[in-house]
Amino acid sequence: MKRFFGWLGFFVLAATSAQTVTAPGGNLSLTFQLTDKGQPAYSVRFKTQDVVLPSTLGMRIKDLPALTEGFEVLKTESNVVNEPWTPVLGETAEIPNHYTQLTVALRQAATGRLLTLIFKVYDEGVAFRYEFPKQPQLNYFIIEDELTQFNLNGNHKTFWIPGDYDSQEYAYNETFFADIDGAKIDMNNGIGLKTIRSNQRVQSPLMMKTAQGLYLNIFEAAVVNYPVMHLEVQPKTYRLTSHLVPNALGDKAYLQTPAVTPWRTIFVHDDARKIVSSRMILSLNEPCKISDVSYIKPMKYVGVWWEMHVGKSTWDYAGSQNAQNAADGSLKPSGRHGATTENVKRYIDFAAQHGFDGVLVEGWNTGWEDWFGNWKEDVFDFVTPYPDFDLKAVNAYAQAKGVKMIMHHETSGSVANYERHLDRAFQLMKDYGYPAVKSGYVGRIIPRGEFHDGQTMVNHYNFVARRAADFKLMINSHESSRPTGYHRTYPNYIAAEAARGNEFNAWSVGNPPMHETILPFTRLLGGPMDYTPGIFEIKMSYYDKSKSEQVHTTLAKQLALYVTLYSPLQMAADLPENYERHLDAFQFIKDVAVDWQDSKYLEAEPGDYLTVARKEKKGERWFLGAITDENARTTTLKLDFLTPGKKYKAILYQDAKEADWKTNPKAYEIKTMTVTAKSKLTLRLAPGGGTAVSFEPLP
Amino acid sequence: MKRFFGWLGFFVLAATSAQTVTAPGGNLSLTFQLTDKGQPAYSVRFKTQDVVLPSTLGMRIKDLPALTEGFEVLKTESNVVNEPWTPVLGETAEIPNHYTQLTVALRQAATGRLLTLIFKVYDEGVAFRYEFPKQPQLNYFIIEDELTQFNLNGNHKTFWIPGDYDSQEYAYNETFFADIDGAKIDMNNGIGLKTIRSNQRVQSPLMMKTAQGLYLNIFEAAVVNYPVMHLEVQPKTYRLTSHLVPNALGDKAYLQTPAVTPWRTIFVHDDARKIVSSRMILSLNEPCKISDVSYIKPMKYVGVWWEMHVGKSTWDYAGSQNAQNAADGSLKPSGRHGATTENVKRYIDFAAQHGFDGVLVEGWNTGWEDWFGNWKEDVFDFVTPYPDFDLKAVNAYAQAKGVKMIMHHETSGSVANYERHLDRAFQLMKDYGYPAVKSGYVGRIIPRGEFHDGQTMVNHYNFVARRAADFKLMINSHESSRPTGYHRTYPNYIAAEAARGNEFNAWSVGNPPMHETILPFTRLLGGPMDYTPGIFEIKMSYYDKSKSEQVHTTLAKQLALYVTLYSPLQMAADLPENYERHLDAFQFIKDVAVDWQDSKYLEAEPGDYLTVARKEKKGERWFLGAITDENARTTTLKLDFLTPGKKYKAILYQDAKEADWKTNPKAYEIKTMTVTAKSKLTLRLAPGGGTAVSFEPLP
Repeated sequence: MKRFFGWLGFFVLAATSAQTVTAPGGNLSLTFQLTDKGQPAYSVRFKTQDVVLPSTLGMRIKDLPALTEGFEVLKTESNVVNEPWTPVLGETAEIPNHYTQLTVALRQAATGRLLTLIFKVYDEGVAFRYEFPKQPQLNYFIIEDELTQFNLNGNHKTFWIPGDYDSQEYAYNETFFADIDGAKIDMNNGIGLKTIRSNQRVQSPLMMKTAQGLYLNIFEAAVVNYPVMHLEVQPKTYRLTSHLVPNALGDKAYLQTPAVTPWRTIFVHDDARKIVSSRMILSLNEPCKISDVSYIKPMKYVGVWWEMHVGKSTWDYAGSQNAQNAADGSLKPSGRHGATTENVKRYIDFAAQHGFDGVLVEGWNTGWEDWFGNWKEDVFDFVTPYPDFDLKAVNAYAQAKGVKMIMHHETSGSVANYERHLDRAFQLMKDYGYPAVKSGYVGRIIPRGEFHDGQTMVNHYNFVARRAADFKLMINSHESSRPTGYHRTYPNYIAAEAARGNEFNAWSVGNPPMHETILPFTRLLGGPMDYTPGIFEIKMSYYDKSKSEQVHTTLAKQLALYVTLYSPLQMAADLPENYERHLDAFQFIKDVAVDWQDSKYLEAEPGDYLTVARKEKKGERWFLGAITDENARTTTLKLDFLTPGKKYKAILYQDAKEADWKTNPKAYEIKTMTVTAKSKLTLRLAPGGGTAVSFEPLP
Repeated sequence: MKRFFGWLGFFVLAATSAQTVTAPGGNLSLTFQLTDKGQPAYSVRFKTQDVVLPSTLGMRIKDLPALTEGFEVLKTESNVVNEPWTPVLGETAEIPNHYTQLTVALRQAATGRLLTLIFKVYDEGVAFRYEFPKQPQLNYFIIEDELTQFNLNGNHKTFWIPGDYDSQEYAYNETFFADIDGAKIDMNNGIGLKTIRSNQRVQSPLMMKTAQGLYLNIFEAAVVNYPVMHLEVQPKTYRLTSHLVPNALGDKAYLQTPAVTPWRTIFVHDDARKIVSSRMILSLNEPCKISDVSYIKPMKYVGVWWEMHVGKSTWDYAGSQNAQNAADGSLKPSGRHGATTENVKRYIDFAAQHGFDGVLVEGWNTGWEDWFGNWKEDVFDFVTPYPDFDLKAVNAYAQAKGVKMIMHHETSGSVANYERHLDRAFQLMKDYGYPAVKSGYVGRIIPRGEFHDGQTMVNHYNFVARRAADFKLMINSHESSRPTGYHRTYPNYIAAEAARGNEFNAWSVGNPPMHETILPFTRLLGGPMDYTPGIFEIKMSYYDKSKSEQVHTTLAKQLALYVTLYSPLQMAADLPENYERHLDAFQFIKDVAVDWQDSKYLEAEPGDYLTVARKEKKGERWFLGAITDENARTTTLKLDFLTPGKKYKAILYQDAKEADWKTNPKAYEIKTMTVTAKSKLTLRLAPGGGTAVSFEPLP
């Protein structure tokens, strides 16, 4: 009770204004109240537990009195909303959207300014946002600081990454809340650009678990025209406070009334599966604004990409892969360039042979000799191919084989330059029939002084999505800020990286085996991730005996990731020749669907394991993925998600008995059996292992 | 002698390294020398006078040792260059470019870094630049400060404007050097956005006159990928030091070797006419990079513009001309919109009737209800007309009448937004046949933290010129940084405002009568100005009895400005109906040429008067303009510039006897006479007055 009185010391709730709203299911409720100073405050209760203790809300406005206290309630309104919706692509054919809403209209007596708070209480979490109505007292304004508190009720277990303005490509740290400390992270982690201004600051989504077994997650939805929210940590008082990523001037957001902030979200449930299966973040975004969505299609693809990561070839044509001023004057081929017409044709042949939709080619365009690490503004023009890449011939060849080329736009962080060339770049794609582009933001941002997670960049990513929609193109952004559901509004924004992807396993300490069990509780809540699974040659010593880097999973787990890490855009990331040596295992990647009628999360524990079964959208097949962390795991699953009375041929791609991510990662076995909805399936996952299963209905 | 020893106190010249180069004409020389600390230094001598005392050169580089001292001379090279060139449009058909060059290759012993200094000595001034050769010791680098000194030899008379990062739209202050003080300026001068960080800082070009009657001017040429140089003033030591306009982070310039700075220029002459007739700034730029220049044509134009300045109509369709959030939701016409199809047709008719090439229309596109003063990012899209402006009909009408429409792109300083839309905006121009665009940069710059005069913006203006060239379009930028001759390289950058234009007379304290006598010594050295002369209704009380604003010239001087202020793009800025009441005076505007075979500056004294005669490029007519400041002036001119033996009909448009800019500005008279090259012409200019003369050869 000590801590309880601790926060009470800061403010006293005025009894008159308290208002509680409860989720449709009855277990989760939120209470709004004004403090005696007229500060808006909220608290959250799950069943019998006070999960978020009274926490104040407020804003500091540049050059104006703060919007923090002295408020009176003008009006409150509460109602239940049930508006399920149909995503263009998704984990389920329909997405529920059922919540109780509370709207609180406030007026700051001393200034006459209006502020509205909107709360939504779902069964698995709450969301709220600030709304600044159109008003004579407030027109243009600059957010100096958002002061949203999240007062936790204990020293929870947390999965956190540091509050870096420029990168989320960190492995998660699993510590108690009180032990969060950025200074303790090993920064020799392969991340090229880091901007950390405080060791007591973390990024959201912040996944947590209480001592009582409750799962908590603090995140946000609909980050539009606003910076990304990081979280200030007060380790001793268990308080989190919003920290908005600034611009070069230290300003946070430039707004004009009427304006809204993103939704601040708190997932709360005693069943971890309710968190990973929630689509609350998407539902909190605006409905689809694209009228013709016919061009938005799921894709499985291969690409000239991993071979550069493993050092077999280079992005650049004339340099030494130093990426810094290697070429001097005219381009002299080094002979190691990956994106040659000939090599690309090999990938096209492979894609066509195995039924892939697309081929990504990185390093096709001039600029890679001197693109990285120097804050250089004019690097790429996005339209000029290297001399050994025949844009026309490659596309003609692909089209003849029924394969689509995927464009690549690395911006090197020079967003100003990218925006200048965007129309031309997209027009080139239309001219040749590219349906999708992978964009990249490696390096310090230009306009200089901006960060990857600031308002300017958030607006940029969203702008690119909208402009891509003008051209009916799909976009997959890498090194962008992490998605918060904007692809509900612009579903052509088909995927993003925006977390530590598989590539780090090729040339850094890599991703620990638990990494992929956490992503569904964090990064994936906001939208699909282009994680690029499917690496069969796990150890980099295969390419170069001196290398000790490796993928931190078994081969079978790489297959399971196609199911556990949802994305309508999935790469088979390894080299064609590596797949050709394991065509039996490769069959799962060929078979697995990427757009889903239904998804059933069967088991989930952040940092430990996850098992999900999904039914393809246009068909009767099911696919199952089960993964574990560094610990072996045996689990028995009921297959009651299958259609009753139907027989299925189940093909299990699983770790061989002796498999182990570190010592024997490639040991897999494939087992076929007949099952029904009444069957039980026992899976044995190796340390760092996984199992992938396909269920094909039998006639 | 006291001051002379003063600077000697700072450094001692090492006698060994001195090297002097002299201009082809022999009067001007520059001496380079290393100080005993190995600092590069230069001094300038005109005839027998030491005009610039030894002044050091150097750079501070961010995060690296400074490039200031410890240099040794590796090599020097000197040669005379004579490379006259032919401008696409200009004051003369051919531009001389004759100078002595000295190249000094330096090496900083302690770091091994190389620096080259290049000096050019013309008859009327010197120029020098820093060159950073490609070298292993220096690749990417950031200029933290440029430390170029200009040590003057006395308390010269100066014509200065404050070192404002965002605006040059100031009237000139005429004071002695020691009295330069930004704090003494009346800031109630109509400039909307001012960013002055020091009162002892001025902009260049800085025009000066010594007690000995020498004319001095410090400026720069070829500002490309570098910020604008302002000048720090040390009033007591008569020292000027370069001050580069910073970005949001305080950085000055991001460079990669090989790189060069702009040319730092010092005009020196005892004949003021040699300064105003110099095209040294242009010559210091790179030759034309446009292969097809056929679309670059001089233009005289009228436009829907002045009527907004005088309050007759508005830019916006639905607002109250407040320019700030006047419209709420849907557009409801106020009935005062200027850019209506009907009104524009009236201007087209007028243009066609009187032989003008173009019609500018401002306020044609949506956004003007809320465009100014709030650092708003998304204001204009540059393609969407207001409902009452029929883009297609207007252009069809204009084309049928043989008139071209001039596009208008006000960016409101939101350059990020403009660049995003630029291809679309230019494509729209091509679709409808617009040959030229007037752009505007009113307001704080976005990317936020950048200034109008910083490297980012310099690059932007030049980028727009290059991209306009892609579309074969001409550009005329307003509120951009002042030109430094880049239109030699991109002659489609046909004109710019970038100084205090005529518009300030409509709604502010205006431009004092001496203003236009200074511009040729400052702003015009860098390139043509779209000053928008030709105002016949001088006093704003004509429109509104309560107004006391007025143009600070006589009507006759407005005519003379078409000759004295060179531009291949000249507006007849007043309203058609005002011209129709004075068709006799208007005849001069109709007649006057805008591209020239030759120009003869007959008289010039900054702040006092200027007289110039010009011969049209494709014809035998001459035009003469003579202007004075607030003092009446009588002058007798020899007409020996006319072709000997030829008779000319001279039409004089001059101030009537009783004319006075303040009390009787519209009193003019028109006199016709026959003259030859042997004639003399006596002109009587009223206070704030002028005379315009056309000379037409008689058969």
